[in-house]
Amino acid sequence: MNADIISRVRGARPIIHSITNYVTANDCANILLACGASPIMSDDPSEAEDIASLASAVVLNLGTLSERKLDAMMIAGKKANFLSHPVVLDPVGAGASRSRTEAAQKLLANVKFAVIRGNVSEIRALSGEHSASGGVDAASADLGDDALPSRIALAERFASSTGAVAVLSGKTDIVTDGARTCLLHNGNEMMSRVTGTGCQLTSLVAAFAAVSNGDIFEAACTAAAAMGLSGELAAKRLRHDDGSGTYRAYMIDAVYNMTPDILTKGTRYEIRP
Amino acid sequence: MNADIISRVRGARPIIHSITNYVTANDCANILLACGASPIMSDDPSEAEDIASLASAVVLNLGTLSERKLDAMMIAGKKANFLSHPVVLDPVGAGASRSRTEAAQKLLANVKFAVIRGNVSEIRALSGEHSASGGVDAASADLGDDALPSRIALAERFASSTGAVAVLSGKTDIVTDGARTCLLHNGNEMMSRVTGTGCQLTSLVAAFAAVSNGDIFEAACTAAAAMGLSGELAAKRLRHDDGSGTYRAYMIDAVYNMTPDILTKGTRYEIRP
Amino acid sequence: MNADIISRVRGARPIIHSITNYVTANDCANILLACGASPIMSDDPSEAEDIASLASAVVLNLGTLSERKLDAMMIAGKKANFLSHPVVLDPVGAGASRSRTEAAQKLLANVKFAVIRGNVSEIRALSGEHSASGGVDAASADLGDDALPSRIALAERFASSTGAVAVLSGKTDIVTDGARTCLLHNGNEMMSRVTGTGCQLTSLVAAFAAVSNGDIFEAACTAAAAMGLSGELAAKRLRHDDGSGTYRAYMIDAVYNMTPDILTKGTRYEIRP
Repeated sequence: MNADIISRVRGARPIIHSITNYVTANDCANILLACGASPIMSDDPSEAEDIASLASAVVLNLGTLSERKLDAMMIAGKKANFLSHPVVLDPVGAGASRSRTEAAQKLLANVKFAVIRGNVSEIRALSGEHSASGGVDAASADLGDDALPSRIALAERFASSTGAVAVLSGKTDIVTDGARTCLLHNGNEMMSRVTGTGCQLTSLVAAFAAVSNGDIFEAACTAAAAMGLSGELAAKRLRHDDGSGTYRAYMIDAVYNMTPDILTKGTRYEIRP
Repeated sequence: MNADIISRVRGARPIIHSITNYVTANDCANILLACGASPIMSDDPSEAEDIASLASAVVLNLGTLSERKLDAMMIAGKKANFLSHPVVLDPVGAGASRSRTEAAQKLLANVKFAVIRGNVSEIRALSGEHSASGGVDAASADLGDDALPSRIALAERFASSTGAVAVLSGKTDIVTDGARTCLLHNGNEMMSRVTGTGCQLTSLVAAFAAVSNGDIFEAACTAAAAMGLSGELAAKRLRHDDGSGTYRAYMIDAVYNMTPDILTKGTRYEIRP
Repeated sequence: MNADIISRVRGARPIIHSITNYVTANDCANILLACGASPIMSDDPSEAEDIASLASAVVLNLGTLSERKLDAMMIAGKKANFLSHPVVLDPVGAGASRSRTEAAQKLLANVKFAVIRGNVSEIRALSGEHSASGGVDAASADLGDDALPSRIALAERFASSTGAVAVLSGKTDIVTDGARTCLLHNGNEMMSRVTGTGCQLTSLVAAFAAVSNGDIFEAACTAAAAMGLSGELAAKRLRHDDGSGTYRAYMIDAVYNMTPDILTKGTRYEIRP
């Protein structure tokens, strides 16, 4: 955790190339603008190399995937690797269909990811471990507090085998590079009632990684802390009659108003040896 | 009308496979999450069969249609038919272009729909009856109170000929299976000033149909009642300076906070013999 | 500036065919509904001619471009030209990639545009003048008050060479047909922290041009004034803890509540000889 990364994003305004799904693209662009980054959403193979070259980091998000988008992802990912810019993978729905899982595996085989963020079902599917997929949401058997140790072990194995920092979202967020592991206890259950809060975290991770000076683990922890705390702060503002529609806007508000000081005071996390 | 369906959706969290347009996909996912269902938005033919198999109901929405999406719709619709899962059609913009109308007719010829929800222009276009299309919105000649009997007759003919429950949205919503007809008097005119309230109703219908235990007519009536009442409750919250932007969030809030009790007390409908 | 155009849009409810990106399509549809127009979002070549024929104006927005969309744009643009309906171009990200710039130039060579709206980087790229692109946002060197005269000159040259009214968005919006130039001083810096405010202005321009009775320059000035003032009014409503999420909804609220009277009293502009 390094809360000053927030100031660094606002100072540097890193361009984040996002190849993402059309369900949450608007939220992802708005969360990037809210945190101070500059999004460019583009999914066409014909410009993937140009746009990736312009950007400080690249997000590959597998929601509403198509063959054309996968081509663009391969090109942009390889270009960013060549430029040593961080590439972040969000394997939305991995495990929910054979073709989605295969697409994720093709990307893993061809692109070096700085960070991979998903829920437990998605990470399990990419690990080749069995999971009863609940669509794009995590399978319930994997979600209880009892299963936390097994989720930590999964994330650590996955980080070690891929060489990426793993961000495994859930009630407790797990961030690990295989050696260091951070557990984050912020967040609010309403985050799961708004589409795209996971995609938005992935976008934040990319923005923070873009100004990380090489410590991707620290950047990912800070992004997860900022997102979880924003979810908490948004929930505190809700009044009678408010629900997930208002909450969605309040989450972006909270990221917009986040400061290093607010983050330092509000975040609750532990580093496991 | 069976207000307990709301509790059933929240208990069962049915997965709803949505092949839909990119204009309102976010709203559709959020309304599904707000009512307690679990959306999976995916439009690729390569995974249409897998995703449809995972889901308890399928929505086919013709907005921003493409050949690729239409292929996915055919595959997902047939798979859901095979599994006896309800398939819901939203023929957005039918009548506005020849290719959109033809796509809808191709789907009607190949997929058995549990429910078809549209405005009067769209349903008229699918019935092969003449309509001066007003784009994706209903033609004004068809909209007055005077035209209500002709709209009811249209919906009943359409339900009988297709074998689907017809939901004809308007100032008065009409739900009919050809034999039973329900007129719903909730709603608010601001609903027509926010894009996607029709698409959202279609999504709710699918979620309610997924837990309907076979009474699709009842599920569709309940969904239409819940959406109309949400539109009313959202309008009551508006203060000076609020407009359609705030209203959009309040509608989702109202669905999020909807209970069987609120619905039972607030809904105004009549069943025609 | 002619504030009565607002009433004309509400009376005529012009259909606006929008071929646009999936990041901000929802916002564009909602701003069109808020101002009283009727959006139809469709990007498929198979129906481009039918939909363009139905509409009173066409918007071509280059965000998240694909070859398929570009084909649809060519067809819709030519059809609208044939029908003498205004066509408005938003060259999102021109200059950010070779293929995006080429697509814009292909459209410029084949379609006669009534209005072209972009930021200074985009307009510079289309002018064939050098610009260090900052992705989809304007390059900072071009943004200061000092650079205003050079931005005005750029817009005037661009309008003269293309025959279109140029709308160059920035802290001061510039609207020019090459002969007349209007500088608009409304707006708020938070507009740049919400994705799609530029796309939304482009949509408003198309709605206003659709009822312009031929004075496209006046329509474009009025649309820019309405959007800028909406950005100001939205900012005034913000309270502690509000941010860009809430602001996004408030901007649409302000367009929804805009009247000729509010616009006349609130707008600050000057016409340059």
